[in-house]
Amino acid sequence: MKDLAKKFGHNLRGTRRDKGISQDKLALLADIDRSYVGRIERGEVNITLEKAYQLAEVLECDVRELLP
Amino acid sequence: MKDLAKKFGHNLRGTRRDKGISQDKLALLADIDRSYVGRIERGEVNITLEKAYQLAEVLECDVRELLP
Repeated sequence: MKDLAKKFGHNLRGTRRDKGISQDKLALLADIDRSYVGRIERGEVNITLEKAYQLAEVLECDVRELLP
Repeated sequence: MKDLAKKFGHNLRGTRRDKGISQDKLALLADIDRSYVGRIERGEVNITLEKAYQLAEVLECDVRELLP
């Protein structure tokens, strides 16, 4: 699980930065706690499919781009 | 969420049947409860990324094939 979560978090951070969006803004737009965005990006949590889609929607990318 | 979970469940059931694998066998190989496989296929649960990968691995398919 660790590896999957870490890779997803890495992809999320990369995509977020590419789009010039801060963790605060992503958290606000995705309606999740900012500290949770940090935990997701560090691969510390095993998020749900729904949350992955929610984040992809905010980042205006296909969820597949965030998947390892 | 409903729609996402339903579509994932529909894709899971289709792929499982295409491969001639029963719910019991999928549950056994994915190390999850059989009734949970049924709930996933009916779109009643919001599964985690890890569980989606686990199911894809058992069905020997790319997790992206199961995604809506």
